[in-house]
Amino acid sequence: MVKANNKSIIFWKEPEEYPIPGEHFGVELREIDENLDDNEVRTRNLYISLDPYLRGRMKGFRANYISGFQIGQKFDNLGIGEVVASRNPKIPVGSIVVGFLGWEEYSRVPATSQLKIIEGARESKFPFSSWVGVLGMPGFTAYASLLEIGKPKAGETIFVSAASGAVGQLVGQIAKRLGLRVIGSAGSDDKVAYLLKDLKFDAAFNYKKGNILESLRAAAPEGIDIYYENVGGETLEAALEVLNIHGRIVASGMISGYNTSTPYGIKNLIHVVMKRIRFEGFVVNDFSAETREKFEKDVSAWLQNGEIIYKEDVTVGLENAPDAFLGLLQGKNFGRAVVKITDL
Amino acid sequence: MVKANNKSIIFWKEPEEYPIPGEHFGVELREIDENLDDNEVRTRNLYISLDPYLRGRMKGFRANYISGFQIGQKFDNLGIGEVVASRNPKIPVGSIVVGFLGWEEYSRVPATSQLKIIEGARESKFPFSSWVGVLGMPGFTAYASLLEIGKPKAGETIFVSAASGAVGQLVGQIAKRLGLRVIGSAGSDDKVAYLLKDLKFDAAFNYKKGNILESLRAAAPEGIDIYYENVGGETLEAALEVLNIHGRIVASGMISGYNTSTPYGIKNLIHVVMKRIRFEGFVVNDFSAETREKFEKDVSAWLQNGEIIYKEDVTVGLENAPDAFLGLLQGKNFGRAVVKITDL
Repeated sequence: MVKANNKSIIFWKEPEEYPIPGEHFGVELREIDENLDDNEVRTRNLYISLDPYLRGRMKGFRANYISGFQIGQKFDNLGIGEVVASRNPKIPVGSIVVGFLGWEEYSRVPATSQLKIIEGARESKFPFSSWVGVLGMPGFTAYASLLEIGKPKAGETIFVSAASGAVGQLVGQIAKRLGLRVIGSAGSDDKVAYLLKDLKFDAAFNYKKGNILESLRAAAPEGIDIYYENVGGETLEAALEVLNIHGRIVASGMISGYNTSTPYGIKNLIHVVMKRIRFEGFVVNDFSAETREKFEKDVSAWLQNGEIIYKEDVTVGLENAPDAFLGLLQGKNFGRAVVKITDL
Repeated sequence: MVKANNKSIIFWKEPEEYPIPGEHFGVELREIDENLDDNEVRTRNLYISLDPYLRGRMKGFRANYISGFQIGQKFDNLGIGEVVASRNPKIPVGSIVVGFLGWEEYSRVPATSQLKIIEGARESKFPFSSWVGVLGMPGFTAYASLLEIGKPKAGETIFVSAASGAVGQLVGQIAKRLGLRVIGSAGSDDKVAYLLKDLKFDAAFNYKKGNILESLRAAAPEGIDIYYENVGGETLEAALEVLNIHGRIVASGMISGYNTSTPYGIKNLIHVVMKRIRFEGFVVNDFSAETREKFEKDVSAWLQNGEIIYKEDVTVGLENAPDAFLGLLQGKNFGRAVVKITDL
């Protein structure tokens, strides 16, 4: 019998509100699956990424773009690993790969998984975590959705909620580069200071202090043209009030509604009619390969020459992933949230 | 002194909820303005149209596409008139015109107004009211917004609320012609029977009976791809539940929110994110002249050969316009609501 020594994060129970580590999910030691079929690989996992959408997989939305977790199942999500065994000739041992990996130390990765080799990863000046951050899914989300759903034009004003988060910080910086006036909201004074001083936002406010609508009106006396939506609730309601005619709402997420059984009711959607607003959701896989290529070229160049910066909030140790995920849902992270499992 | 003999509907007071005839607006006799400057005409008014958006003009939305009514001002809206005096060489006496007219028996129409002559109106087999109905603004609204915002595809399912109304009845019939499965909701059993028997909808329900979400689910077991939104509130919430991935919401109106100081809060907008929904408002003036031409050609041909029908709810007598408008806001009309002021 194989020794159970593969530290793993397991889904135990569906939460009503916030998922509690130790109650709804937590650490188990499971066996490392040493078997490999044709075209499968085994990875030693380095980073896993923490994303709010995982909360949805803990309750199984009817029309979600990815399957929900089953009780007793391992969490999985985008991660970075080193290939330590391979029966896939295209992915040799030693490759650094990005793709869907279990929240565990070692993964047996099925042939159907679309692992991607990060060329030159070992020599890169960017940390491995970049490929699940600014150069990966959240980066592409920010870039593609801002351009293709938001349709930003120089001189317009954009408001970004959760503006220091994985997606928001990049949306704001790209919008600045395109000549927009950028307003951000975040949940602490430190984050607001970061938006103003480091990311050079034109205005920013702490949504936990004072009235959101008043803060937004003060920051955007001439209204906003784009609302980049990460949070929902009162912030969405305030944005609907100040949006200009032909405004756009890029619906990237609504984290405020993920962890409550009594979501906030939005009472002013009449503005969608009256101001001819386009309010649109998306999933990152819907964007074209061409947009993906442009993203990779643009963002790595901007990052290389320092035109954009990207803040990560790294939790060390897989056993701390549940707490870090809860912290993300509560807005306690400062920057893109990742868990480092081990050094290379 | 000129005799005050021009029966007119005047705005008196801003309503909090429903506008009450005799309290918030009502009949006054005013003078006929016999003066005409260059390029002005005087009309004898035949029909005025009743549209829910007028409720918004009684409270002055910040970003409305048209100015709100001032206290003491005459109502105005799309209407049909006969030109009885003219200093505009392009609009001779005797012309039948459609355009913005006061709710009054005789209007002095400014030079800036874009009155349009209805060619052949006197000989047409269509009643004059058609040019503020199926062949006019509501018809064009239905046609253009369904095609350009809804992007319907054969085999899809559309759900239309207020489906026997000015816009809804046409949306449903056009969608049927395009090969969609059509579901409608309305507020009485008579209207539901009309949708099923006369308009050949595939399914229809009375939203006042039973639970809206259950009725909609039963009518659309495979979900809906387009929601044509006229009402808002619980119906919108139900539509968000059953919309399929990449669903569209054509936001034409939200009448349920027009007459209340405590609008219903929509709690499931998370579906916009999860199902990548596009929820989009518009105003009919935003559509192109090309679309307008196609509309005029298509819809008059369909009407002529009986492929579509169009139900009007005609109130006779200008003095009855306030009651008829209140009835429209309460869903008491059955078909496109117009007021006939006089015969030709």
